[in-house]
Amino acid sequence: MINEDDIFFELKFRRPGSIYTSTRKEEDIPIILSGTFNGRTTGMPLSIIIENKDAKPIHYEEIKYKPRPGHADITYIEKYGYENWDYRGGGRSSGRETVSRVAAGAIAKKLLLLTNTMISGYIKKAGDFQIENTPEFNEVLCSRNSPVRTIRNKEEDLMKLIESLRKEGDSIGGIVEVIVKNPPKSLGEPVFDKLKADLAKSVLSIPGVVGFEYGMGFDSYKYKGSEVIDEIYYDEGFRLRKNISGGILGGISTGEDIILRVAFKPTSSIAKEQKTVDLRDLKPTTLSVIGRHDPCIAIRGVSVVESMVAITLIDHYMLSGIIPRKLSEEQSNIIEKRWLEYKQKCT
Amino acid sequence: MINEDDIFFELKFRRPGSIYTSTRKEEDIPIILSGTFNGRTTGMPLSIIIENKDAKPIHYEEIKYKPRPGHADITYIEKYGYENWDYRGGGRSSGRETVSRVAAGAIAKKLLLLTNTMISGYIKKAGDFQIENTPEFNEVLCSRNSPVRTIRNKEEDLMKLIESLRKEGDSIGGIVEVIVKNPPKSLGEPVFDKLKADLAKSVLSIPGVVGFEYGMGFDSYKYKGSEVIDEIYYDEGFRLRKNISGGILGGISTGEDIILRVAFKPTSSIAKEQKTVDLRDLKPTTLSVIGRHDPCIAIRGVSVVESMVAITLIDHYMLSGIIPRKLSEEQSNIIEKRWLEYKQKCT
Amino acid sequence: MINEDDIFFELKFRRPGSIYTSTRKEEDIPIILSGTFNGRTTGMPLSIIIENKDAKPIHYEEIKYKPRPGHADITYIEKYGYENWDYRGGGRSSGRETVSRVAAGAIAKKLLLLTNTMISGYIKKAGDFQIENTPEFNEVLCSRNSPVRTIRNKEEDLMKLIESLRKEGDSIGGIVEVIVKNPPKSLGEPVFDKLKADLAKSVLSIPGVVGFEYGMGFDSYKYKGSEVIDEIYYDEGFRLRKNISGGILGGISTGEDIILRVAFKPTSSIAKEQKTVDLRDLKPTTLSVIGRHDPCIAIRGVSVVESMVAITLIDHYMLSGIIPRKLSEEQSNIIEKRWLEYKQKCT
Amino acid sequence: MINEDDIFFELKFRRPGSIYTSTRKEEDIPIILSGTFNGRTTGMPLSIIIENKDAKPIHYEEIKYKPRPGHADITYIEKYGYENWDYRGGGRSSGRETVSRVAAGAIAKKLLLLTNTMISGYIKKAGDFQIENTPEFNEVLCSRNSPVRTIRNKEEDLMKLIESLRKEGDSIGGIVEVIVKNPPKSLGEPVFDKLKADLAKSVLSIPGVVGFEYGMGFDSYKYKGSEVIDEIYYDEGFRLRKNISGGILGGISTGEDIILRVAFKPTSSIAKEQKTVDLRDLKPTTLSVIGRHDPCIAIRGVSVVESMVAITLIDHYMLSGIIPRKLSEEQSNIIEKRWLEYKQKCT
Repeated sequence: MINEDDIFFELKFRRPGSIYTSTRKEEDIPIILSGTFNGRTTGMPLSIIIENKDAKPIHYEEIKYKPRPGHADITYIEKYGYENWDYRGGGRSSGRETVSRVAAGAIAKKLLLLTNTMISGYIKKAGDFQIENTPEFNEVLCSRNSPVRTIRNKEEDLMKLIESLRKEGDSIGGIVEVIVKNPPKSLGEPVFDKLKADLAKSVLSIPGVVGFEYGMGFDSYKYKGSEVIDEIYYDEGFRLRKNISGGILGGISTGEDIILRVAFKPTSSIAKEQKTVDLRDLKPTTLSVIGRHDPCIAIRGVSVVESMVAITLIDHYMLSGIIPRKLSEEQSNIIEKRWLEYKQKCT
Repeated sequence: MINEDDIFFELKFRRPGSIYTSTRKEEDIPIILSGTFNGRTTGMPLSIIIENKDAKPIHYEEIKYKPRPGHADITYIEKYGYENWDYRGGGRSSGRETVSRVAAGAIAKKLLLLTNTMISGYIKKAGDFQIENTPEFNEVLCSRNSPVRTIRNKEEDLMKLIESLRKEGDSIGGIVEVIVKNPPKSLGEPVFDKLKADLAKSVLSIPGVVGFEYGMGFDSYKYKGSEVIDEIYYDEGFRLRKNISGGILGGISTGEDIILRVAFKPTSSIAKEQKTVDLRDLKPTTLSVIGRHDPCIAIRGVSVVESMVAITLIDHYMLSGIIPRKLSEEQSNIIEKRWLEYKQKCT
Repeated sequence: MINEDDIFFELKFRRPGSIYTSTRKEEDIPIILSGTFNGRTTGMPLSIIIENKDAKPIHYEEIKYKPRPGHADITYIEKYGYENWDYRGGGRSSGRETVSRVAAGAIAKKLLLLTNTMISGYIKKAGDFQIENTPEFNEVLCSRNSPVRTIRNKEEDLMKLIESLRKEGDSIGGIVEVIVKNPPKSLGEPVFDKLKADLAKSVLSIPGVVGFEYGMGFDSYKYKGSEVIDEIYYDEGFRLRKNISGGILGGISTGEDIILRVAFKPTSSIAKEQKTVDLRDLKPTTLSVIGRHDPCIAIRGVSVVESMVAITLIDHYMLSGIIPRKLSEEQSNIIEKRWLEYKQKCT
Repeated sequence: MINEDDIFFELKFRRPGSIYTSTRKEEDIPIILSGTFNGRTTGMPLSIIIENKDAKPIHYEEIKYKPRPGHADITYIEKYGYENWDYRGGGRSSGRETVSRVAAGAIAKKLLLLTNTMISGYIKKAGDFQIENTPEFNEVLCSRNSPVRTIRNKEEDLMKLIESLRKEGDSIGGIVEVIVKNPPKSLGEPVFDKLKADLAKSVLSIPGVVGFEYGMGFDSYKYKGSEVIDEIYYDEGFRLRKNISGGILGGISTGEDIILRVAFKPTSSIAKEQKTVDLRDLKPTTLSVIGRHDPCIAIRGVSVVESMVAITLIDHYMLSGIIPRKLSEEQSNIIEKRWLEYKQKCT
């Protein structure tokens, strides 16, 4: 069963509207146009419409002649032509397109419950704010109720940071960490479609993402091989003592939790003055981006990263034959039960 | 024109055989089986054979029952079955498969010269060794003659580190930085096939790679938006003053140099004792990996990363129609001339 | 420029509503949801909605328990499960889905005018009705104004056949012939993506299509090689005297007109009694399909085949770099001028 | 288990060397370069080399300046340039490339035995020769031992036809019919990847193939709907009384035998004089193709069509999860047993 409520449940965690994110009021009510019948998917593509009821094109009039630094404006104009460029918020390069990813991600997340697999992320670093070790999965999951999408008992520090950035009209980058709890073994296809490769592509397709790593990631250079040897033991299958490899070995999932991190750049739309070019005379000019932008796009980005991870896993479930063509009644019931539990957590 | 010498030229930079890498003697002589006629590609697939003349299966007898920590052994056994597992070096998950990537990369690199685009990388970090800023492209290119694949006037520090690791039977992780010089504008396809996404997938498909970033990458969380605003100016097209975005905006190349970094984990095959499971009785046992392994796989990995970047760019050249179906005589001659210059650099 | 009128122009030729086709009244008004800005495509995916305002689910109540012979009912029930089956007209396997193909085809057809390439088809055979030779392209094009989609000065015979079938509550199969006028040379990718292979796949994806051929097609067995030798001559490029190969040699377009034929089976939904199974008890039962069905689906199928051919050609234009990423003003103007002429023909 | 003998068994049925086919002596001994270990596939790509030991480039010297009518010569020269054209037999457009398809097909055919599915074809029509109805599968299978690849008790007529064509230096087209015995239900993916669509593409990718049909195919126009209604009944699943739809409904397999036909054009290389252009001066000239060509390429084409059908089915088995990632011992044993039986039939 899939209905609009299931999708809306996840959309809420991406939705702007608080003082810690964009103050835009996007209702984000999804409508399923086709693909289900009596609440069941028919095997047809799902078509979902999510209207944006709070667009303010007036905010974008200045941009019409002043491409914004850090945005896709100049690359779109070069590639597609100025005449074909939709200056009213960036079009397909707008962060708004990520609402579709979260809608699809909701369905993927629900389906992953067949194997009792869950995905959740949180803000690990932003400016001086930092969560040192990888928290328990439940703590991570409960960050979805945090206004700044981080571990609840640490969230105040990040709230203060965001408040001060908003006052300054400035922004900050951030690192998102995502945990996949209870992933199945054997996901990933050598040579080119390794799980790590597909995860990297899917998260790098998100606007604002500039890096992907898993396991040791970019700290690897600090370690000797002997320091990061991870003992193999046997307990109803091969297990790894410390999961140093972050759930993936040889590009294939080990069955241990998958732990990955994603780097978001600072929001480019800031109120401070920026130097750009006037498209009418190609001479230098300046720009202050008016609008209701996120001081830290990584915060709302957490849901988007989770969604892309969920979608990528489902792709590999299908490659591996884990998801059958049609779920049995029993399988459907298990999923519904687990979905209910999943929704009720942290409340 | 493509011949075996062109391919061999690049294979040399990946080839093991020095005391700073694996001491295996792989000759790596490529033979073009099909796809060319009178030195020209016919439009057919190129089939290239590179035999491995120095394989020593005897080194792998112990592994037959002892999966190696940090390797794909356990994931391959789980996924494909013990009976179907080729224990003699890891098969398709062996670093040996990367020789094919470099062979294909050689052809891609030569073709990129049509737009005068060149790619080169070097070791940026390994243990305490570190190159602070991004060097000039020529310095990076000349690292191909360094025995430890780093900037020549800094190479001694890294040589000492590698020597001491070899003595200890240990290994180290490393960060590779790659520069794409003179890339064309407008490469990259929104939404999912952004250039950054395809680059991420292609390098994450390399064995041992655990992270990808470009531009600010994982340091993004340290910066405020106002600190990393990059001025747009106009000089026969849009330009960026500092290239903070590493050559890509909105997933599309800006025309500025593309700067990316890749994290390699420490070589897992080390002489030190490791805990694993004996496959015959599933009880704990220990293993010291005998063989001729690289103390730092990132060193030989530089060529492999360069190659994957080159191949990915050529894919996008083709998507963008930059490479015509058949090169004109003039285009062929330009490429040959630039290839000669490229080969002669740093000598 | 693309607007709703352009799309509607082509949708009209597929639309039911006459006594020679289905008498359903589908208005088929297209609405472009996204992907254009000021009438120009932005490079984003086009989202087009075409509502079906004359669906009569009541017609499908009997089918709920009686799968229709000749339809996808039994295969969908087996594959996706009875619970997930949308019995109200076949869902994704309904002929209704082809309206999307024609909408996309309209855009493809307009874009093909850049090379002055046009596509048109007509009913070549249905029962005793038959058009012997391949007519001139203009005659074929003007069949779009025929109520039975065939050559105008022969249409009466086919009209009579259809009228009598409608009275009997019966249907007939048909052969559609399509001509591509002025195709470019060099479309088609050896080995597996030959132009003939991609055309075959695209038209066989249409509901009701059971065969594809081009050039000599299934008559080949009647001919000796010496009878079908086609002289090569030179006139600003290689030409073929008789175009026996139907515009494709070695899987690549020769530049001569592409001539292909497609077989449609008789409409399966007929008023006559059919034997099937009652899904409630799995016992034999009978069914007469109520509804407003086409006596010959090939008639409305002509537009759908044309559209799939147009879409497939555009795919190959893009592979071959014929269509630039952004059209110049001059190119846009040429297309608009030719589109106007194309629309005004046969009036 | 897969070994060279398995592959060679199928290659024999495509191999030339009799007076009824080409008199070339191609040994077609396959060598597995990589992908197996102890006779089992490891999950790696299989690399198989089949050398052509009887190539006679001298036969192709005249073609160097005289493109052959009916061949891909002119389209390859236009697309890839004369300088890049391998005139010695057509290169990638040569019928020789089909040996690879049969090698892959052998493996696919063996794997299909897991579901007890078998594929075989025969010559249905060539000139005046014709097999009226679809024969029993065993008769079709035994055609593999016929020198003219048709039903054994009818083969003499076809042998006479071929002998007389050889004497005249002429050739003939032909229709191949293929039966898939015991296919599984539910293969095929709506909308665009219907089983019929993928089969069409795969067989149209074969050199010389100009048409595909299944079930009623191009005879459809002769039938009224009421004449071809096929009763649905229930016997451990839905069954069809007459299998008029040829095993596929709505693009999805019904579980009934799949029956398809493929049209091959007459061999273009004939000894009779043909008109072409001299590439040196672009003036008219004539050509008689010297060489050892097949009077009817459809004869050796039967194996190639069977192979493409087998490969396409295996693709859909994998999409449907029918073939597990690793076969159990029991499954392997069933396949080996059935393969032995399959090989021994008709002897």
